[in-house]
Amino acid sequence: EQPLVLIAGPCVIEDEEKTRSIALYLKNLTQEMDIPFIFKASYDKANRTSGEAYRGPGFERGIEILGAIKDDLKIPILSDVHRHEEIERAAEILDVVQIPAFLCRQTDLIVEVAQHAGVVNIKKGQFMAPWDVRNIIEKVLSRGNDRILITERGTSFGYNNLVVDFRSLPILRREGYPVIFDATHSVQLPGGQGTASGGQREMVPYLVRAAAAVGIDGLFLEVHPDPEKALCDGPNSLYLESLPDLLEIVKTIDDSVRKTKSTTL
Amino acid sequence: EQPLVLIAGPCVIEDEEKTRSIALYLKNLTQEMDIPFIFKASYDKANRTSGEAYRGPGFERGIEILGAIKDDLKIPILSDVHRHEEIERAAEILDVVQIPAFLCRQTDLIVEVAQHAGVVNIKKGQFMAPWDVRNIIEKVLSRGNDRILITERGTSFGYNNLVVDFRSLPILRREGYPVIFDATHSVQLPGGQGTASGGQREMVPYLVRAAAAVGIDGLFLEVHPDPEKALCDGPNSLYLESLPDLLEIVKTIDDSVRKTKSTTL
Amino acid sequence: EQPLVLIAGPCVIEDEEKTRSIALYLKNLTQEMDIPFIFKASYDKANRTSGEAYRGPGFERGIEILGAIKDDLKIPILSDVHRHEEIERAAEILDVVQIPAFLCRQTDLIVEVAQHAGVVNIKKGQFMAPWDVRNIIEKVLSRGNDRILITERGTSFGYNNLVVDFRSLPILRREGYPVIFDATHSVQLPGGQGTASGGQREMVPYLVRAAAAVGIDGLFLEVHPDPEKALCDGPNSLYLESLPDLLEIVKTIDDSVRKTKSTTL
Amino acid sequence: EQPLVLIAGPCVIEDEEKTRSIALYLKNLTQEMDIPFIFKASYDKANRTSGEAYRGPGFERGIEILGAIKDDLKIPILSDVHRHEEIERAAEILDVVQIPAFLCRQTDLIVEVAQHAGVVNIKKGQFMAPWDVRNIIEKVLSRGNDRILITERGTSFGYNNLVVDFRSLPILRREGYPVIFDATHSVQLPGGQGTASGGQREMVPYLVRAAAAVGIDGLFLEVHPDPEKALCDGPNSLYLESLPDLLEIVKTIDDSVRKTKSTTL
Repeated sequence: EQPLVLIAGPCVIEDEEKTRSIALYLKNLTQEMDIPFIFKASYDKANRTSGEAYRGPGFERGIEILGAIKDDLKIPILSDVHRHEEIERAAEILDVVQIPAFLCRQTDLIVEVAQHAGVVNIKKGQFMAPWDVRNIIEKVLSRGNDRILITERGTSFGYNNLVVDFRSLPILRREGYPVIFDATHSVQLPGGQGTASGGQREMVPYLVRAAAAVGIDGLFLEVHPDPEKALCDGPNSLYLESLPDLLEIVKTIDDSVRKTKSTTL
Repeated sequence: EQPLVLIAGPCVIEDEEKTRSIALYLKNLTQEMDIPFIFKASYDKANRTSGEAYRGPGFERGIEILGAIKDDLKIPILSDVHRHEEIERAAEILDVVQIPAFLCRQTDLIVEVAQHAGVVNIKKGQFMAPWDVRNIIEKVLSRGNDRILITERGTSFGYNNLVVDFRSLPILRREGYPVIFDATHSVQLPGGQGTASGGQREMVPYLVRAAAAVGIDGLFLEVHPDPEKALCDGPNSLYLESLPDLLEIVKTIDDSVRKTKSTTL
Repeated sequence: EQPLVLIAGPCVIEDEEKTRSIALYLKNLTQEMDIPFIFKASYDKANRTSGEAYRGPGFERGIEILGAIKDDLKIPILSDVHRHEEIERAAEILDVVQIPAFLCRQTDLIVEVAQHAGVVNIKKGQFMAPWDVRNIIEKVLSRGNDRILITERGTSFGYNNLVVDFRSLPILRREGYPVIFDATHSVQLPGGQGTASGGQREMVPYLVRAAAAVGIDGLFLEVHPDPEKALCDGPNSLYLESLPDLLEIVKTIDDSVRKTKSTTL
Repeated sequence: EQPLVLIAGPCVIEDEEKTRSIALYLKNLTQEMDIPFIFKASYDKANRTSGEAYRGPGFERGIEILGAIKDDLKIPILSDVHRHEEIERAAEILDVVQIPAFLCRQTDLIVEVAQHAGVVNIKKGQFMAPWDVRNIIEKVLSRGNDRILITERGTSFGYNNLVVDFRSLPILRREGYPVIFDATHSVQLPGGQGTASGGQREMVPYLVRAAAAVGIDGLFLEVHPDPEKALCDGPNSLYLESLPDLLEIVKTIDDSVRKTKSTTL
């Protein structure tokens, strides 16, 4: 059995220097805490609520920055792809290629990612029942790739709100692939600020602890040294400095749950 | 700060002997585990899906059985009331009087319970936002009663399904009263078997662990020595024998979470 | 086949004079438009969001007022009951006794109403799938009463919001009893004003027209000469003066739909 | 004011002959009934539930077939695009280019379509509040294109189910662009058949009538001569032969509603 992994980083690459310093902080912290770590950052936020919002440095410059950080820090990198023409080159640099939630039904994107990526991270769509993720898995497997992660990130619940149905975690785990809990997007309030999504950062620790207690294989968190000034998803990003305490309690809960004899029902 | 309390028992009184033996088992188990315990059993299931279903021994006989068990075993007792004429006498026997979820908007019932009951347990309706529980609390307080418990039991999510929004637990706790997580009714599938509600017993341990990790003051569980033969809510009742392991992990998680420095966000 | 009936009146009896004048206006209007009419007013709003809110004149005075209006104006009367001790006497005066939505699972209330009432109007709970209304119907039938109306009034949709699933109307009609569309409560925003429910009066005409086009047996509307000053449910009550135009278009749509050959699918 | 338009055709091009004969039937029917008509067919179902499902003839062959039908029958054509590299050529043939619901947040796709398309049809995502469509409209307008249609197609409601919130139609119309009601996808049961979406064809006439009564600018319907044998979305496609009766009642309701003086609320 694998220990719980942390996938973390800023929502988007704001600049190389800031991105690298976040990565370095996370690398050191997780090394110290003995937590396997994958660095996450997007180079292009292709589906912002508003067309006016900051999107990132774009593919060319972004993948270059990620490649440089990977080489320098010797850490595995995850990022998400939105356009077919990016997939092949992205997969050369990235250790994990992520299928965005809104795109988790796009067959071509999935199979192309499956073909090129080392590992595929499927984000479950907000509109999808957990048992329907099996069809996405099948699309990935159809290209002979079985290095799959599945990420829970909340489900549509009325308007401008998401709810995490924690029953989904054991349902998703039955598929036999590692299940990641994305706390950051689970507390998004989609479109909740008119021209941007809102978020409930204060709810992240509660949901993270709940997920660890239910049982997960990994945790996905967007972090920022100063979320109030973040160029994307600030309201639901965690302060970097709050991470050590949060990871501490997560490890404790995770250890306890893994030791539990599976309860007779 | 109070330790986590367990409210548990069979969904309904099936007969005095069986009810007493469940109570005794729970008393001994919780004493051994050093968990404060309140025994729960209903005398009348007044809102079964079908009019044909077993409802219990009725008020007179039921309250007599509960009184006898209370005297013999020296344990506090919780039960729910559905009719005004029951309230005063029920409150003489019961330590905690419970407002059923479907009735949580019935002003008269709430204020009469508030007037007579030692402690009032408000079950949040399936149709209610967590912040709207404040109005129910006000109704109880208006009778000078501030011994209040608030119970989370899931929220309507499409048809024949409930979801637990774990963000509700910290929201409810802000009101300043102990918050109980009712795992049994949270995994109900309302009306899901045509003429009876279904349930997902296998999900109870996951949600119980999640609730403990988020932070609660108490746990509500319906249990039965043989849920397959239970006369009410069998599909979501726990096997008595699975309780010790479940309480063990709950205690461990609860301890860890209480020790946590509240995370800087 | 029966023509479309209108059930209308103020949310609550504010005083005898005002209530009578609304009833008279509605009687004259519907006579002129050749629409069968049942007058609706509540004597006690037993489940207001806040315990401080106006509830009405109470049972004794309220039923007296309704009886007087019935005698004077020779119109059938509908009202809702919340307490067992009211049922028998209420049923002597009322032509239709209504089971409130929150109480549609309370078996005793339903069977006692069934036993005494001329006609029973079942309001489908906000938490209930349309196919589960069959169980309520069975409870009514178990007392030998088959004079049943079923009322659609919206379904929980996230927090503080309801949605009308218009698929429910044909599903409910399959049961063989007249189906009423309650536009007023369908546009309620439960708890949406903190200590009172909000409402979207401006949406009433749209949903009323939709219901008539889908096919219904009756329409339920709360009206007020000055909704801004109404003591209950003002935000979703219609201005009395807007009723003639609305009923005109409803009649036109209803006529068209009834003439339609049922479409081959 | 423009008359109500019909957008209709098969879900996917199965073969040229069948597609052309459906188009011809629809052209003749709508000419006879004096209904403006746009022919709809997809060349590539890029987001089928299962990767094994039939997707269509593909872009090259599909756009050729649509071009031929357009030239021969002199009818405007709508189809949907999923990949950037298709947009420019698709827009040369198509009169209306459709943004799929799952892709309605993909900024690049939207602005590229806006740049090239004569008319852009935005399908509102199942995960989106109606007032958030304004952000998509802004993305289209940012390329100087204001020939916009907005299509309602239902909203996530629990798992494997959608609900149409008919309040969305007037909300969407406030934006000032024609609003289309897509009855076919509104009755989809997403993923409801395990490896394919189910559907409720029998609900289409009800929802279509409701939409016409609420007030729309156009109707979107997928049709098939034999839906039981359709290669895509059969369960929610209409029998071609049921269309005349359905359009008849829609026209009648639409006429009545347009003549209505807007009701004073």
